[in-house]
Amino acid sequence: MRLRNKPWAKDKLDSHPEIVVRNPEQFKGKWHEVFGNKNPIHIEVGTGKGQFVSGMAELNADINYIGIELFESVIVTALDKALEKDVRNLRLLNENAMDLTKIFDRDEISRVYLNFSDPWPKIRHAKRRLTHSNFLDLYKEILIPEGEIHFKTDNQGLFEYSLQSFSEYGLLLTFVSLDLHKSEFGPNIMTEYEEKFSNKGQRIYRSEVRYLNK
Amino acid sequence: MRLRNKPWAKDKLDSHPEIVVRNPEQFKGKWHEVFGNKNPIHIEVGTGKGQFVSGMAELNADINYIGIELFESVIVTALDKALEKDVRNLRLLNENAMDLTKIFDRDEISRVYLNFSDPWPKIRHAKRRLTHSNFLDLYKEILIPEGEIHFKTDNQGLFEYSLQSFSEYGLLLTFVSLDLHKSEFGPNIMTEYEEKFSNKGQRIYRSEVRYLNK
Repeated sequence: MRLRNKPWAKDKLDSHPEIVVRNPEQFKGKWHEVFGNKNPIHIEVGTGKGQFVSGMAELNADINYIGIELFESVIVTALDKALEKDVRNLRLLNENAMDLTKIFDRDEISRVYLNFSDPWPKIRHAKRRLTHSNFLDLYKEILIPEGEIHFKTDNQGLFEYSLQSFSEYGLLLTFVSLDLHKSEFGPNIMTEYEEKFSNKGQRIYRSEVRYLNK
Repeated sequence: MRLRNKPWAKDKLDSHPEIVVRNPEQFKGKWHEVFGNKNPIHIEVGTGKGQFVSGMAELNADINYIGIELFESVIVTALDKALEKDVRNLRLLNENAMDLTKIFDRDEISRVYLNFSDPWPKIRHAKRRLTHSNFLDLYKEILIPEGEIHFKTDNQGLFEYSLQSFSEYGLLLTFVSLDLHKSEFGPNIMTEYEEKFSNKGQRIYRSEVRYLNK
């Protein structure tokens, strides 16, 4: 994703505390209080411009969604989308995925979404992939026992890597599609990226996994 | 695969006992004697017209290959290929995959190849797929602890099913390619079917798995 310099982004994020939660560590173990209900919480790690997470929030009023994105200049677009949708079950965090266990308590999250994560194609960067075992450790800690990871990508290499990484970690593969848009899966809320690349005929890969012995 | 009636097939198979082993149960636990050496034994379940297994036998003189095929009218073509290649490390069995554990002893086989197996697309036929847990039970019994299953197919649905079946069974995915012919994998001995369909631009999927706790 191209990153544009948006010097005004920080102020804009700060001006919407009802959506953008600053210093989220303070709510560790208390996210239900933030939403004011006991509904399950689903997070999207690397939420980008937010089309997926805001679309999901609109579709499923009884689930709480938290989109997490490292780049200020990108999450500010997700904020715009959240404001448009005007939903109460969505929050955004301008944070690093490596801090997940500082932000969320054990068994606080019901599902992790990974959508079109950066493939980091060079082997020496494998540890940065969001399906690397280091990240699977983090998701395991914050997910409830029956919690799942839902992952989609158009990147063949990342998908191949991830299937192996999931298997090595001992995760159970409960769903896999090697051509999502030609499958019967739905409703499929698309990310901005997914819309663009599937229109060009690119295949979308998708999987669901869950931890055993949690 | 289209099955042609070949009334002469049985006699032809019978006339080459140096390649086609009849009543193979008699060699259970003694296949090394059949080959006259202690080299590892790799089997192909559903060997079809035999291009793969005879090509592999030619390429790897220090491995013993056994191709197993149910249909007499098909394996007779595999016999022709075996005769052409004139290799000593190849045998053919006109047998049913369900009888594997009658034919081979525990830990007698080092690798199982499944190539372009019948996809049996109807859910009520799932038990006939060669990657169904019932067959995974059989391979487990005859494979050595570090033995592997190498599987390729052009059938997307069968590959998706198989990835899930392997995962549910607790198999470790050690290799996966979602577009084999565009990958760096090699040497790739093609089956007749693979040659035909990859020439039409069809993707070939390939995976390697092994049993844990064997």
